[in-house]
This record gives sequence, C-alpha cells and structure tokens, in this order.
Amino acid sequence: MDANNQITADQLNEKEKMIIDQVLKGFESKRQGKSSSYVSALFAMEHEFNGEVLSIKMPVTPIVYNSLGIMHGGITATAIDTAMGTLANKTALPGKAAVTNQLNLHYTAPIIDGEITAYAKVLHAGTKTMVIEGWIETADGKRAAHATGSFFMIDKK
Amino acid sequence: MDANNQITADQLNEKEKMIIDQVLKGFESKRQGKSSSYVSALFAMEHEFNGEVLSIKMPVTPIVYNSLGIMHGGITATAIDTAMGTLANKTALPGKAAVTNQLNLHYTAPIIDGEITAYAKVLHAGTKTMVIEGWIETADGKRAAHATGSFFMIDKK
Amino acid sequence: MDANNQITADQLNEKEKMIIDQVLKGFESKRQGKSSSYVSALFAMEHEFNGEVLSIKMPVTPIVYNSLGIMHGGITATAIDTAMGTLANKTALPGKAAVTNQLNLHYTAPIIDGEITAYAKVLHAGTKTMVIEGWIETADGKRAAHATGSFFMIDKK
Amino acid sequence: MDANNQITADQLNEKEKMIIDQVLKGFESKRQGKSSSYVSALFAMEHEFNGEVLSIKMPVTPIVYNSLGIMHGGITATAIDTAMGTLANKTALPGKAAVTNQLNLHYTAPIIDGEITAYAKVLHAGTKTMVIEGWIETADGKRAAHATGSFFMIDKK
Repeated sequence: MDANNQITADQLNEKEKMIIDQVLKGFESKRQGKSSSYVSALFAMEHEFNGEVLSIKMPVTPIVYNSLGIMHGGITATAIDTAMGTLANKTALPGKAAVTNQLNLHYTAPIIDGEITAYAKVLHAGTKTMVIEGWIETADGKRAAHATGSFFMIDKK
Repeated sequence: MDANNQITADQLNEKEKMIIDQVLKGFESKRQGKSSSYVSALFAMEHEFNGEVLSIKMPVTPIVYNSLGIMHGGITATAIDTAMGTLANKTALPGKAAVTNQLNLHYTAPIIDGEITAYAKVLHAGTKTMVIEGWIETADGKRAAHATGSFFMIDKK
Repeated sequence: MDANNQITADQLNEKEKMIIDQVLKGFESKRQGKSSSYVSALFAMEHEFNGEVLSIKMPVTPIVYNSLGIMHGGITATAIDTAMGTLANKTALPGKAAVTNQLNLHYTAPIIDGEITAYAKVLHAGTKTMVIEGWIETADGKRAAHATGSFFMIDKK
Repeated sequence: MDANNQITADQLNEKEKMIIDQVLKGFESKRQGKSSSYVSALFAMEHEFNGEVLSIKMPVTPIVYNSLGIMHGGITATAIDTAMGTLANKTALPGKAAVTNQLNLHYTAPIIDGEITAYAKVLHAGTKTMVIEGWIETADGKRAAHATGSFFMIDKK
C-alpha cells in the first residue's frame, strides 16, 4: 500500500482485514481462471454445473451487508444474475454470448449469515433470447429470493 | 497483509492495485460515516438528495466488470437498489425502515467506463409499502437501465 | 336487445355471433357458480386444482386477439393472474383473501389458436404475502409465457 | 340469439344487460375502426395521443371485476398493455410492429368504480426493442398501478 492511501495495511480493523483477505483470495481465484470477473472474485463465488442447473455458492460476510445488517438486495441480484448469466453463456450456441436484458426479483426472506446457494435453470431457449429462472437458498434450505430474467444472445467478439 | 495470503501487497498487478486502492478509500468513507455499508464503500458510491430525487454517483472501473468487460448486471442492480433503498429509508415515517420486496430492471445500454449516476424517485408512498422508480444514466446522459421496486416498511430495531 | 343499441342481434356478423355466444355461455357459467367473475366467464375459463398446481383451460378465439391477430398480452396476463389468484385464495388461511401486489410476465411465443392452459404453483407462502409462479402452455405443449407474482393476504370482508 | 344458447336475450338480468350493451357498443366501435381489437371494444377503451403520452380511458363496470368485487389485475394489465402497445406501434419505424416481450406491474390501489385512464410513455426507443412505462389513474387522480414493459420490433406482415 503506498503512502497516498489514507488507510495502511497495519491500520485495518477486524472487519476490514476480513474483507481485504476475501478480496486477495478473489484476486488469486481470478488469476487462476476460477473466477471470470472481479465481481465473482470479490464475493468469493464458486460455481458448479450439472448439465441442467447451474449453482453458485457464496459466503455471507460483512462485505455483502446493507445498512440494516442483512444481505444487500443488489448483492442478492448479483449472485442470481451471475448464476443466470453463466448458465446462459454456457448453453449459448457457438459464437454467441448472453447479456442481461431484463431481471425481476422477489425477496422472500432476509439473508443474515452462513453460505447461500444461487441456482439458475433455463425456462425458454430461443435463438435470439433466453428466459431463465433463478433462486437463492440459505444454508438451511429456505428460499430467500426468486427471480426470472431474459437474456439477449449477441455475437461474441 | 499477513503471510497467510497467497498474494502480498507488493505482488499486486495494476488492476488489482486500482481495486485495493478503491477498497481502502471505501473503508475510509465507511469509517467517516459517508458510506452506510461496505457495499457502498467498495463501489465508491456517493449520494445526494434534493428532497425529491436521490442520486448516487459511482465510477466504472474493472471492479464492476462482468466476464464480457461491461458493467455486471448485478452491480447495476446494486447501484439502483442502493439509490431506491436510501430514498425509501430517508422518506420513511419515524421508527420505520425499508426493505426491498421486489425489484424489476430493464437494461437498455451497456455501461463501459466513465461515471454513472443512479436516480430514485417515489411513485407511491403507502403506510406499509412504497413503490419507487430508479434509473441509471451514463456520463453522456444516456439511460442505461430503468427499474421499479417495491419496499416493505418495517419497524426499525 | 333494446332499440337503443346501434347493433341488434340479427345484424351480428359471424365473429360477433361467436363472441356473443361465448359471453352468453359465460353468463350461464357465472349463474351456476362455475365462474367466480364475469372476466372468467367472458373468456370461458375452466379451472382445476390437483392440490399443488392450479390449472385453467381457455379457448383462443377472436375475442382475445390484439390488432396483430395474436392473443393480446393483457389477456395472457389475465389468464395467468386468474390462475395465480385462484390458487392464492384457495390456499389462503381461513378468513383471508389474496390480492395481486405485483405481476411480472415474460412472453416467449405467440398464441394463435387452439386452447391454452395457464398453470400456477406456490413458490413462497408467508403469513402476509405469497409468491406464485405461473406459466401458459399452448395445445402442443409449448411454453408461451412465464410469470411470477406476489400477493398480499388481506382480511376477507 | 339462437335457440342453442342456454340464455336468451329476454332472460338477461340487469348486470348481464349492462355487459351485453357494452359488448354491442364495442362491436359498433370495432366496425367503425375506432377499436383495433375486440379486447379494446369489449372494455370500451378510447385512446388519445398527444405526441408524447398515449392515454386510454375505460369505464369500470361489473365486466371487469374479480371475485372480490374490484377490478381484476389482469384487466388492469390489459388496459396498460394496450396503452403501451398502441404507443409502441404508433411510434415504430415504417414497416415495423411491436409485440410485448416483458411486462411488469405494481398494483398500488384497488380500482372500484368510475373511469380509469391508462397512460404510456416511451423510456427507451432502440431499433430492436422499446422500453415503455405505463400507469393507471383513477377518476380522482390516484395512481392505482404502475408498469414497465419491453417490446420487440418485428417486421409488419
């Protein structure tokens, strides 16, 4: 850390250390190609695909809290959109990539701690668009959010 | 950084340095009470409220990119949900807090660089729920996303 | 038909006769208690409930077409909302009724003729809200629309 | 009315007469080209366009009630989707028509009687898609519903 930063490494408090630790592990994961983006890396997402359902596991730490101390609705959306988008790209025709066109989320229970799993499953696969459903389960198997999204299939650069 | 991390501070590449720099500035902002959560801090969000419209400015750096090199749809959702939620909490009756119940987003243009502004405005304010619209404009004034959300008003702890 | 109407029964063309016939059958169904509303009656909806999934069958006739000659997106919404709302009311606690709070629909294929079936299934049943998914299949088993909705549980009058 | 119908014209009760009257007026409106579909005709919709906002007026009669005696959520969707779709088609490039791809609605107040007005306004006009917002006001100016929809632009037959 250079002298221009207001905070230096030895001045970090416990929560900040935990977050920096998570970010550095994310860099490692990104360098090794396990994460395809810093977003996935930052939130320590790990995905798995069984051929039908794509799932992403993610720890619930202070980095994801909103000002009320529960998981931020936008981070919930990020976990679900990542699961859906990864699935859309994995199942796209050769030469095609998927971009989110529309996303709709229902929040059904607060997420407080432990580990969540975001799931994604294709509802409709057209040549130009895909509709995918996604949902989040808490460690004890409760549905904390349910979503649907539509994706545009574009030519990969 | 302690010896347990795979990556140490002097091994960071340019993008990683930029991200760590942004995270440390976020900690500073969180400590000073300018950010109410690490999420806001991480993405360097700064909000402003003119009494009707709440706006949040946020830089577009590699930390927000998806695997296609454009802003991740979930981070777009995070910026909008933060603007909406901050507005809902600011305009809530005394003793009440707002939690996201439902969020719907349309993505209308890719976000690549510069600075974005997320806006939020109340459409309906009931005693139990609020409906809020939100949208994102790029630096050149283009609408990149449009959203509506409903919020439940709960008793503040 | 009284003299004040511009059109009298003997002046109806074929499509108009088909519609009037459908409306009169709907009145019959409403009188017999088979339809709980004129909306269900007008569109000749018939529902069935297997304990988990509620389904509604409905014929596709000119009465439901939009100006492009395919089923009107609002009528698709009506079929799905009716299935969801009927399910919500059937599974509500004693003394409670369900009203639609939010509805989100993806249209995945045009509906042209034959008979459609709208399905509804509970995703989340809370004491104050329910989240339900719904979808429409055409006669040949194709998914023409997919929806999710949230319902508020209110005291029955 | 022919002998095959269970109900004949002289057996109609007051509500049924009101509905048949509305349907016949709708036929008249459809014949004169004032309504572009039987759906618009049935619900006696009248539209107006000021160059920016398209509005549709519609009476609230028993024909639109759900089983709770308030306007059916699907019919609310129909009024809004008609306003949005009419606007999309009016502002489409020559040779193009618009079909609903996705529709999201928030219901903010029950609609009981009087006349409602549904409004539609373009949020984003692309070459392939449009995003439009729509809302419903009751006779006393209260917002009863708010919606956004995305439309695909297809080649007109």
